[in-house]
Amino acid sequence: MREVYVLGVGLHPFGRFGDKDVIEIGREAVTNALRDAGIPWERVGAAYCGTVFAGPMGGNKVLAKVGLTGIPIMNVENACASGGSALRAAYQAIAGDFCDVALAFGMEKMPRGFIAGNPNDWFAGMGLAVNPQYFALKARWHMANFGTSEDQLVQVSVKNHRNGALNPFAMYRKEMSFEEIANSPMVNDPLRLLMLCAPNEGGAAVVLSTREVARQQSTELIKLAATVLGSPLYGTAEVPHISVSARVEAPTVTMTAAKEAYELAGIGPEDLDLVELQDTDSASEIIYSEELGLCERGEGGKLLDDGATEINGRIPVNVSGGLLSKGEPLGASALAQVAEVVWQLRGEAGSRQVKDARVGLTHVYGALGNCAVSVLQR
Amino acid sequence: MREVYVLGVGLHPFGRFGDKDVIEIGREAVTNALRDAGIPWERVGAAYCGTVFAGPMGGNKVLAKVGLTGIPIMNVENACASGGSALRAAYQAIAGDFCDVALAFGMEKMPRGFIAGNPNDWFAGMGLAVNPQYFALKARWHMANFGTSEDQLVQVSVKNHRNGALNPFAMYRKEMSFEEIANSPMVNDPLRLLMLCAPNEGGAAVVLSTREVARQQSTELIKLAATVLGSPLYGTAEVPHISVSARVEAPTVTMTAAKEAYELAGIGPEDLDLVELQDTDSASEIIYSEELGLCERGEGGKLLDDGATEINGRIPVNVSGGLLSKGEPLGASALAQVAEVVWQLRGEAGSRQVKDARVGLTHVYGALGNCAVSVLQR
Repeated sequence: MREVYVLGVGLHPFGRFGDKDVIEIGREAVTNALRDAGIPWERVGAAYCGTVFAGPMGGNKVLAKVGLTGIPIMNVENACASGGSALRAAYQAIAGDFCDVALAFGMEKMPRGFIAGNPNDWFAGMGLAVNPQYFALKARWHMANFGTSEDQLVQVSVKNHRNGALNPFAMYRKEMSFEEIANSPMVNDPLRLLMLCAPNEGGAAVVLSTREVARQQSTELIKLAATVLGSPLYGTAEVPHISVSARVEAPTVTMTAAKEAYELAGIGPEDLDLVELQDTDSASEIIYSEELGLCERGEGGKLLDDGATEINGRIPVNVSGGLLSKGEPLGASALAQVAEVVWQLRGEAGSRQVKDARVGLTHVYGALGNCAVSVLQR
Repeated sequence: MREVYVLGVGLHPFGRFGDKDVIEIGREAVTNALRDAGIPWERVGAAYCGTVFAGPMGGNKVLAKVGLTGIPIMNVENACASGGSALRAAYQAIAGDFCDVALAFGMEKMPRGFIAGNPNDWFAGMGLAVNPQYFALKARWHMANFGTSEDQLVQVSVKNHRNGALNPFAMYRKEMSFEEIANSPMVNDPLRLLMLCAPNEGGAAVVLSTREVARQQSTELIKLAATVLGSPLYGTAEVPHISVSARVEAPTVTMTAAKEAYELAGIGPEDLDLVELQDTDSASEIIYSEELGLCERGEGGKLLDDGATEINGRIPVNVSGGLLSKGEPLGASALAQVAEVVWQLRGEAGSRQVKDARVGLTHVYGALGNCAVSVLQR
């Protein structure tokens, strides 16, 4: 299997952009990534577009504006992991020797007020129809079991907005005070409005290549050392893969995907210099910090309190501002995490630069347990 | 790159099934393919679901009913080539050494009366909003240039319905007379109602594996010798890849994808024993017969008149009944073509069996020029 390198990254800012066409949002991200890679569109050998709401053939419509060369173009829909899935497909195109330069991109113009749950599902019938309801249940579980406090939930959001204020691509480019967040409207107890990320608009793109092509373009190589797509281990009701009674103790999809990514990259969580993870809400950052192995289970709140996840801490988390300050355009989200890590590894992150960052991890997790984890190294 | 083999195929019948859930349609196809492969769901190492209308995470919902084992699950949307794109992704998972058994499946419950065109596109503004309008333009072009007759358009549909009457999975399982088709209502001149395929419902699944796994399961191996996904070669308005004036003479996406597939498989069109191709309408079968190299450009009507494309002809086309008798559930369509070819190569096609079939080709082509071509060999 061939090694895979990041040749370039590009974003369209995250936010809300009125009537701006989602295809144009995608085009700008792709154009920026190609410019960063220093290659013309004619060199791309395969393209994978992650999107949920751009409509049929969204990726083809973007590339029709960038330049069509007859290459395979595939549109990928994997909810919150759409961008991460497109990245993995592009990774495999290079690693498996199907082409030498591959493009992963994603863009979204999220509808407002949409309902994620299917009204025919039993849990939606019970009233569990929108995401913050699930997030709140997980938050309460963590608080009950590990003593995580409402103050800590506020502090996650304080930190990520402080970071996001330094990120020109973030939606909320301003700090928010503890009081502002703690007094924002309650959405689903214990999660308040400013502890939840906004489904919004944006685009991101990543150009991958072989080592040979990457060396022609640059002397500073960024390796995509692993990219893993995981799903749940439940089996079926009749033939459980993990018994129902064992599920509480069983590893989560984030845990199993991270374990596989660490093994593929030949590293452990202790080797990481920064992490971009799925902070759809404040509690998720604490929970996934644990599941990714940045600390023991139940220690996520302490990790935060100790300042370890700050930009200058032991293991900076969401230095980009995370989803809490950027918002979450599903198809672009994971690819924007990769862009942030690449800028950090190159030393190009300006006022939010993590000192001497060499290894970074990205993580998205979403509907039905799809989870994408990647490891980048310089 | 490793060789890839078809371990099993399975369908859910094509047609219209009232309130039956699209996820259940997909589940039945997957279960049938796994049974045909002779392996339990626990052995599948990666899964790719092609669908346009099943809604977010459709593939994950199907596999939640079949059995969840933590594997990568990716949902692919590529319009008419959705199933073909899922097949290619599964092919690459095996060929690229990412897993030993991969599943491609697709299912659809097509909405009735949907408009394919975006009302904001200039051609939709001109009134070109539904597919039969494009098909009719291509048909008229072919008639004007090569003398293809309305009678020949009728005969394509007569042949495919005669074949479809022999296929228990087809939507219309009955023969239709020349008069019945020739007198059916005009939809878009020269295409009449019974010369157009129905967007409908159905499911299909294909299990792929390495040669090693395939040999453990069977002594009669069916090789997926090539699977290609192509897109247009147009470049951009500013930087054309093919000049506008050259486009009339330039190879179509079907031509370039077929050429690549033949090269990968090490064969030519003269080696084919049967072809399943994108007969969304009668004229398309004639046009794609030419573009796939079954005859010279302009000779498609003659190929039909000579009886060459009949089940017992020189190069049988759409012995399954094609889309004209099966209908077109986008995500399942290409995978059902593969199932037909596999049955034919195994000698399991009953009353529509092509004598001693050894090599078959499948072809889908759809919106924005996505085209998937595969070659299967025993």
